[in-house]
Amino acid sequence: MEIYLDHSATTRVNDAAFKAAENAMRVCYGNPSALHGKGDEARHILQTARRQLADALGAKPEEVFFSHSGTLANNTAIFGAVKALKKRGNRIVTTAVEHPSVGRAMDELEAQGFEVIRLAPEKDGGFDPERLYEAVNAKTILISAMLVNNETGAVNPVETLRRAAAAAKAPALIHTDAVQGFGKLPVKPEKLGADLLTASGHKIGAPKGVGLLYIRKGAHIHPYVFGGGQENGFFSGTENLPAIAGFGAAAAALPAPAKKLPEMKELNRTLRASLAALPGVTFHSPENALPYILNFSVAGIPSQVLINFLSARGIYVSAGSACRRGHRSEVLSAMGVDPAGIDSAIRVSMGYDTTPRELQLFAEALAEARRTLRTKR
Amino acid sequence: MEIYLDHSATTRVNDAAFKAAENAMRVCYGNPSALHGKGDEARHILQTARRQLADALGAKPEEVFFSHSGTLANNTAIFGAVKALKKRGNRIVTTAVEHPSVGRAMDELEAQGFEVIRLAPEKDGGFDPERLYEAVNAKTILISAMLVNNETGAVNPVETLRRAAAAAKAPALIHTDAVQGFGKLPVKPEKLGADLLTASGHKIGAPKGVGLLYIRKGAHIHPYVFGGGQENGFFSGTENLPAIAGFGAAAAALPAPAKKLPEMKELNRTLRASLAALPGVTFHSPENALPYILNFSVAGIPSQVLINFLSARGIYVSAGSACRRGHRSEVLSAMGVDPAGIDSAIRVSMGYDTTPRELQLFAEALAEARRTLRTKR
Repeated sequence: MEIYLDHSATTRVNDAAFKAAENAMRVCYGNPSALHGKGDEARHILQTARRQLADALGAKPEEVFFSHSGTLANNTAIFGAVKALKKRGNRIVTTAVEHPSVGRAMDELEAQGFEVIRLAPEKDGGFDPERLYEAVNAKTILISAMLVNNETGAVNPVETLRRAAAAAKAPALIHTDAVQGFGKLPVKPEKLGADLLTASGHKIGAPKGVGLLYIRKGAHIHPYVFGGGQENGFFSGTENLPAIAGFGAAAAALPAPAKKLPEMKELNRTLRASLAALPGVTFHSPENALPYILNFSVAGIPSQVLINFLSARGIYVSAGSACRRGHRSEVLSAMGVDPAGIDSAIRVSMGYDTTPRELQLFAEALAEARRTLRTKR
Repeated sequence: MEIYLDHSATTRVNDAAFKAAENAMRVCYGNPSALHGKGDEARHILQTARRQLADALGAKPEEVFFSHSGTLANNTAIFGAVKALKKRGNRIVTTAVEHPSVGRAMDELEAQGFEVIRLAPEKDGGFDPERLYEAVNAKTILISAMLVNNETGAVNPVETLRRAAAAAKAPALIHTDAVQGFGKLPVKPEKLGADLLTASGHKIGAPKGVGLLYIRKGAHIHPYVFGGGQENGFFSGTENLPAIAGFGAAAAALPAPAKKLPEMKELNRTLRASLAALPGVTFHSPENALPYILNFSVAGIPSQVLINFLSARGIYVSAGSACRRGHRSEVLSAMGVDPAGIDSAIRVSMGYDTTPRELQLFAEALAEARRTLRTKR
């Protein structure tokens, strides 16, 4: 038995994505830059995937650039935007609960002398638009906020970023890290008012090793990686064609959010109800979070102890994010969760195929853990 | 029939590498940062691959860091070394015939105010150690030269880099881009005197989307990408485990250079002899080049015309490198090849499984091309 509930960390490669990746590894294995027939095949795969992702985003294919990871897409968006606009201002506005690929990049910019304003999360995990409006001034060159928080599922009011820039007459480019939202919420950069948007393949059933950066036509950023000029110069390096092909296939097979979200809300509601019945459970995910993610603590059981207990039973959940192994959650800390709550936090993240039965077994195992582990202390 | 002679651009994923990648996509699909059993599986795969690559390099596993591409490894080596040492000097020494992932990074550093000295290639395509000694001074912070040129196969005397640094009492870190040499020549960073060495998976039968940077124990560079801190902070972003697993498997299955190189030399010699028999053929690869690569021109037939002719017959060769599509070769230009020669240059790059029969069919097709295409003009 394997109950995988860590889809926000990574996913198993699905059938369609695997077939596409296999084809690019074994049959159409050429380099897209090659001038011969094997290069033509590879370019065709690249174009198909680009169209599939553009369709999923409601964007133009020429606005979609494949990176080797969500991290590199985020770094390129941030450093590339700042390099392009640094003559027009010194302020950057972001949130205190970004993924490290945004948060650490901001630290680096701060060390370089930029003024970085980090919006603290409200009780529900999202930023307050009023604080955003106060933070953005006419010298703001970049506003970057994640769409969905990777630890709690909290959804930010990203559509307010552009309005705040307009209100302040800021030259800012608007970036959103949509890695956890893409494929789950309707993610349309134009509707969100984003100039730059990041997504990642391995969170939606594609292979690891591919991300994308949407760059709105007309928005200008500098490249961050230098080399052969692939992806219009933004992501030099031989394209990871197997993963890109898989990303395209996974994007084309995504369930429609309008149909899937209500299903996931129902799963989430049922899971919340079973957990709420256990003494000592505190929820950290807000009620209105992305329903795929549920973050909570069981009082008195440290995260790792519970993870081990469940893992031994073939049930896989996470403590906060998988992205900074061994670090205490900065997200929960910024949300005001007390240290004991942080140290016992568990993140359940469901996939498209997660079943009510799996969640029931998980809840039963959790109840057993509570009995067993707490008596042992 | 498919005769693939563009292995320096990319390779078909071999059986062992594909099996390893498939396992990491479909079975052991966890995130190596995850704290549960699926994370343990993934970490085990990562450790195995790291040991396999360390063995291939004669290095310690803790000196091997997986990147998402050779390009990102080169960028990190260069920008990371310069950031670490910029207080100790302003000079960087490299060659005029580097891969764009080094060459364009050097352009960027030059734009930032660093003094970049580019050694011109000699007749045989390699740099002259005497020029190197003249170029390196006590303010030199980085010396970077490729081991094997990707267009001509010319081999640089990389072992002289460290000696030149020592002679000048330079604080320089020594970097070599060994992407085209790794898996073909014996590439041992310690013997080469390299602090930093780049290799790439998809040139040796592994999937695309993985490279490595060897960082000698004791050598210090800064990271270039910021995020979750994977690969000791040097290559943040979820590890591309399928490609890494494949890289490990491909490295473990590499033929011993001592046995394979003589075979390839014989193939190269035979191919040279067949081509030399055709009127109008000029060789650009030096006699002592890596035998896997043969670069030459057929007078009067532009590269693309010949590539198309061969491609229609299932034979795939390249014009110079695949890395900067549509650009005239800067490498051949720096070597003093005349424009007509550059515009008709063809690169044959063999793989481990290339057969004498394939090369014979290629030579016959080339002879036919010469008759057909030249009459048509």
